Order: sequence, then C-alpha cells, then structure tokens
Amino acid sequence: MTQPRPAGQHTVRRHNSALVLGAIADSPGISRAGVAAQTGLTKATVSSLVDRAIAADLVVDGEPARRDGPGRRGTSLSLSPDGPHGLGVEIGVDYIATCLVDLTGSVSSQRIRPVDNRSQPANRVLVKVARAIRTAVAELPVRVGGVGVAVPGLVESSTGFLRTAPNLGWRDVDVQAELRDRTDLGDTAIMVGNEANFAALGEMWGGGHEDLRDFVHVSGEIGIGAGIVMDGVLFEGVRGFGGEIGHLPVDSKGPQCSCGARGCLEAMAGQDTILQQAGVPDVDTLVLRLQDNDRKAVTATRSVARWLGTALSNVVNLLDVPTIVLGGTYARIEPWLHELLLEELNVRVVSAAWSEVRILRSTLGTEAAVRGAAASAVRAIVADPDPFITATVAG
Amino acid sequence: MTQPRPAGQHTVRRHNSALVLGAIADSPGISRAGVAAQTGLTKATVSSLVDRAIAADLVVDGEPARRDGPGRRGTSLSLSPDGPHGLGVEIGVDYIATCLVDLTGSVSSQRIRPVDNRSQPANRVLVKVARAIRTAVAELPVRVGGVGVAVPGLVESSTGFLRTAPNLGWRDVDVQAELRDRTDLGDTAIMVGNEANFAALGEMWGGGHEDLRDFVHVSGEIGIGAGIVMDGVLFEGVRGFGGEIGHLPVDSKGPQCSCGARGCLEAMAGQDTILQQAGVPDVDTLVLRLQDNDRKAVTATRSVARWLGTALSNVVNLLDVPTIVLGGTYARIEPWLHELLLEELNVRVVSAAWSEVRILRSTLGTEAAVRGAAASAVRAIVADPDPFITATVAG
Repeated sequence: MTQPRPAGQHTVRRHNSALVLGAIADSPGISRAGVAAQTGLTKATVSSLVDRAIAADLVVDGEPARRDGPGRRGTSLSLSPDGPHGLGVEIGVDYIATCLVDLTGSVSSQRIRPVDNRSQPANRVLVKVARAIRTAVAELPVRVGGVGVAVPGLVESSTGFLRTAPNLGWRDVDVQAELRDRTDLGDTAIMVGNEANFAALGEMWGGGHEDLRDFVHVSGEIGIGAGIVMDGVLFEGVRGFGGEIGHLPVDSKGPQCSCGARGCLEAMAGQDTILQQAGVPDVDTLVLRLQDNDRKAVTATRSVARWLGTALSNVVNLLDVPTIVLGGTYARIEPWLHELLLEELNVRVVSAAWSEVRILRSTLGTEAAVRGAAASAVRAIVADPDPFITATVAG
Repeated sequence: MTQPRPAGQHTVRRHNSALVLGAIADSPGISRAGVAAQTGLTKATVSSLVDRAIAADLVVDGEPARRDGPGRRGTSLSLSPDGPHGLGVEIGVDYIATCLVDLTGSVSSQRIRPVDNRSQPANRVLVKVARAIRTAVAELPVRVGGVGVAVPGLVESSTGFLRTAPNLGWRDVDVQAELRDRTDLGDTAIMVGNEANFAALGEMWGGGHEDLRDFVHVSGEIGIGAGIVMDGVLFEGVRGFGGEIGHLPVDSKGPQCSCGARGCLEAMAGQDTILQQAGVPDVDTLVLRLQDNDRKAVTATRSVARWLGTALSNVVNLLDVPTIVLGGTYARIEPWLHELLLEELNVRVVSAAWSEVRILRSTLGTEAAVRGAAASAVRAIVADPDPFITATVAG
C-alpha cells in the first residue's frame, strides 16, 4: 500500500506534533502535563503545539474547543470528531463502497452501491468511483484529510500501481492518478492498497477482538484474499504482493481460475462457486438454506470447508499464525464452517497438537476493507499532523 | 530456535564489549580509532576493551597477539581464528554431522557419519550424538564457546523443546538437557533449532550468494523443510513452528505422509519418493541417470518439479519472496528442476508477470544446516563476548 510522502522539509516541530497527537490518540482524556510526561517534551512546547492542534480542529479540549482562542489548560484532551476525516473507498467486484471516519475512529457516514464492475472497462468504473467520492465528500461538512482506496488486486508498493485485478480484468492501472484527475481532492494523500490488507487492518483496529496481533484475515467474496498481520504490523511481502491466498493451488485437477491457473482456492471455494453448488442466487439465501439444513447448501459448505481448510493449512504450516479471522462471505457462513475447518487444520497442521489454531468470525464482514482503508487514512493524519496545522495557520 | 540467555547482570561494559566486537566483525582490519569512530565510544574505552578481547583470544592484532601483554596500538584488528569456536551439530534422519567454525567463519573441522536414526529410539540416537560432540571437541585444541544443534522437527521457541520430528518418530524431547547431561559442555550455550532454519542461515552467511536477504531456502532431504528469511532476518512464526513446507498439502488424493495427513509435499516429492520412482538406490545414482537422460529418472524428476512447484507457488503467493534457494537433495538435481519449476511458478504465481522468481542452487547443499548451526553459535559469541572476557580475567 503506498504511503503518503512528507510534503516538505522535515522539521523538529513536525516530529513533535506527531508525538503530541500520538500521545493524545493513545490516551484520550490525557492532560497537557500528561502529554509532556509521555513525550518528554517541555510543558511549554506541548501547550503551544496543543493550542495549534486545537486551532486546526485536530484536538478538542474537555469542553468544545473555541476556534477564536486557545483551549483551557490542564483539562482533558482528545482527538477531534470535527477535524479532518479519513475517506475509505472500496472498488469491489460487484459494488463500490465509501466510508468517512473521524479522527477518533467513529464512522460518520457509509454507503455501498451494488454495481457489476466485472463487465466494465477500468475507465468506466473509475468514473463511477470518482462520482462516489464526490458524493461522499459533499455529504458532510467535513474536510477530507486523506483517502484510502481498497482494490481487489495486486498493488505494487514501489509504484502504487494496481498491477492486476483478475476478477475485474484490470492490468497496470494507476488508480491514484486516475482518481486524482477525476475528483477535487487536490493534494490530499491517496493511498491505494489491496482490499484484503485493508480488511485485516480494519478488523484489527475496529473489529473489537481481544488480543488480535498475529493473525490472517481471509476476505472471501468473489475474489479471495488474505491480509497477514504479524505482531500488529501488516505483512505485505517484498513488493507488496503477499497474502494471495485465493491463488493457492488446492486441487491439482480443479477447474481453471480467473488467474489462468488450475484448481486455485478461489475457483474451488469462491463465492460464485459456493452459490452455484448450493443452487442459490445470493448469500442471504444461502444462509437461510443452511439454517433450514438444506442438503445442497450443506454439501456446498462442506466442500468450501475442505478446500479452505487445505489452503489455511498451507498458511499455518508456513507462517505459524495462531489465529484466523474469517471475513466477507465466509463470516456469514462461519457457524457452518467452524468445526469442519478446525478438523481439517488439526489433521494438516504439523504443530496443531501443541497450539490449536483459533478461528474467529469477522465482526465487520464485507465492510472491513472500506473501514480499514478509511482508518488507514486517519492514522496517516495522526502520524503526520503538521501539514494540517500549517494549512490552518497559513490560511 | 532458543537463544542463549545472559548469564549474569547486564552491565555497560557488557554492552560495550558487544559493540566493539561487532565493529571488528563487520570490518576486519579496522583500527582502534576506527572502532571508536564507529561505536561512538572513547578511544580509551575501546583500547581497554580491545586489550581484554585480545587477552581472551577473541581478537587478534595485525601481528599474532601476544598473550602476555597488550597488543600494538593502531594496527589492524580482526576476530581471532584461535579463539572460541562454534560447534554445529546436525541430527539428520540418516546421518549425524558435526562442524567446528572459528570466529572468522572458517570451518576448522567437519565430519559426517551415516547412521539410520529412523529405526532408533531418541535415547539411543542422543547417545551417538553426544559421542559425536565429544569427538569433535577432543579433535582440535580449541575452546567450544557455543553449540548449535539442528534437528529435523518443530522446536518450540518458548521452551526450546523439540515437539515433533515425524521422520524420527520423536515427540517432546528436551534435546538441550539430554545433550548437556551426556557431554562435558558445562554451561556452554546450546541452541536447538529446526534444521531448515539453520540451513537458510548457513546459506545466507556462507553460501557466497550476492544480494540474498529475502528468500526461502528449501532443505529437501528425507524430510522437507523451509527456512524463511525476510530482510536478512529468520522468520520463525509466533511459536517457532513456521516454514513447514514439507507438510503443505499438494495433492488431495496423494498417499499418507509421516505426519498423518494425505498428499503432503514430503510424501509426493521427498527423497524416498524420488529414489523409489526413479528406481535408484541413492542420490549419486540418480544424478548419473539424469546425466544419461534415463527415462525413469527424468520422469521422477518431472514429477518432483510439479509438486515442488505447486508448494513453492503457495509460498510465493503468500509471502511474495523474490528468491528461492534449493538445498539438500534438490541442490543436487537443481539443473534438471530449474526450468520446470520456473514454468510452474510462472503459471501459478499471480505476481509473476511483474517480478520473476529467482531460483538459486544452494552451494552448501546438505552441509548448510550444520554450517548454519555452527555459525549461529559463533554469532552468539560475537553478540555477547563478555562472559568469555570475564572468564579469562578471572581464570
């Protein structure tokens, strides 16, 4: 996923602003003296930086911040819900989603539009995505401080290019530049990243799970991807192409996949295959049929569990991760997958006898990616707030 | 792999000794002034620590160090080939290997004894391993400063226990304690680690490859393991059980593996299977037959390439590693595997079009694990030399 670059010269104040905002983000309700103690900065420096952050709507004092003067000293500080927001955008295979999240992590607005992006050239889809962005920006009277765009394909870290999105049929698209050209985002940071990676971050930061620092989040929708998180940090691989669980070969005799190879997990256990095998039009119907113990639905789900279990055994045998979070469609049918997956893992994972793998159900489901994209944009603001402060002072 | 713990109180001198030895290890031929400049320590501190390190046989001055007095000032410093050595031990499925490496990384002696450890209880094998250690220690008039023991199984990081070694039939063996009881190693540090992990480190440090920092080293012998190295650091997984490539399921209809599951890579493409399919008694004969273009040998190798390619596609799709190093038996037949593996990877790796995977042949082959184990012991001495210095001063 591409990270926003510093816009100008690195200064001491820039570094200190980040320290102060980080301390407030970690401990909402902290006092100025507390920030000073935690950061090692002097109280005078902290006070001055906090005042500027309040003026820039990044921070609020215990009582609503007054725009015309400094906040009150010594009272409790927290990130401002009225400050710059992070905008999350997801270009799904069959939907476009947007989501605005404030600095405190709360969702201010969210929207999902079903669209069949598979039958469309990239150009056409990006026009619709740009329209969705403009609508989201216009909807609320907030400033968008950063944008995260989740795409269902391989994003090269060094260039930020979407190299391939097999389910969209896209290759080598500079999503960032295309969206910048089609919107009024100006020089607002736009990070493009793999949807499965954003989904894993979304689930870690906002899924409400306890003790979730080493895990693999599986985003099972039409495409299947995985976000690998180790010790709280996203693992993307050397070039950003890691986590492609959908293209793990699970059945050497399986059908051809959208990537061109045979018997990939996605071809064996992707959403299209499940629905077709269960003879149902959508996931809602699948869940209803499973609740009724319908034979075809149950058989299709058993087959999914087997192939997904095979792929996850690969993941656990290689990475020794203790936790798997099932997201997307898999989250919807998790109750029917849980035991079967555990059985498969217990047979196939060499270390299973010493450390049983934990399977969790994603609480955000299909929203995880767009939420993670928005939250990533928010975290980028908190990690480098100075441009927002400077803009306020200059303006 | 278990790391040696500090024996006593952490002191400033201990830290500084490590800094000084690290600087000398990184830049052989460096002067005392150079060490001071690189570490930020004063020249007086460096001189005093260097003199102690010379007295302890850890460092030599340009000319052979005199044991009865301080070395000459300003001349070139390097690690001593006569100082404490690292002892590498490998408990293979069908051999026991030992190897002594000096502080500069040179191999002082090496020995491999063919033994069929598969038909033996752990107890029996450990008696032989202890004998091999005693022989290695007695062979040269050097001090053994640390021991690395490579085992073909899962070693739990938190306990150092060998949890399972399917090809040996071992479970829950405290190899470290067993070997300490049976040898005169006293309180010498003993690190037990997975052979595939040690092999990857051995290849990185001593294989002579350029630019080898992100790679997977596949140790294909009777068992198949992988050592995953990212940015120059071994990745072991949360509990130390990562890299179990031998038990990746590659053929859902394949035969049963030693681990109990079906169609694991090891069952489809392990050394026993290759030799059996090629109708040859050993790897030397296999290579001769391949050179003669023998049909059965070629067919067996093609089958190996296919299944190994499937497993490696899993690895690259998940981890996005740019380089694969083929070790063990696979190194011997690498010329016949190379093209076939690349073909398989190019079909199955989603990112292949943007970044072709590089396949290298291990230069250390079956020696990689024991060399890596010895080199790990050496690096542990350099990383914490103080106990060796203190022992000299006290003695």
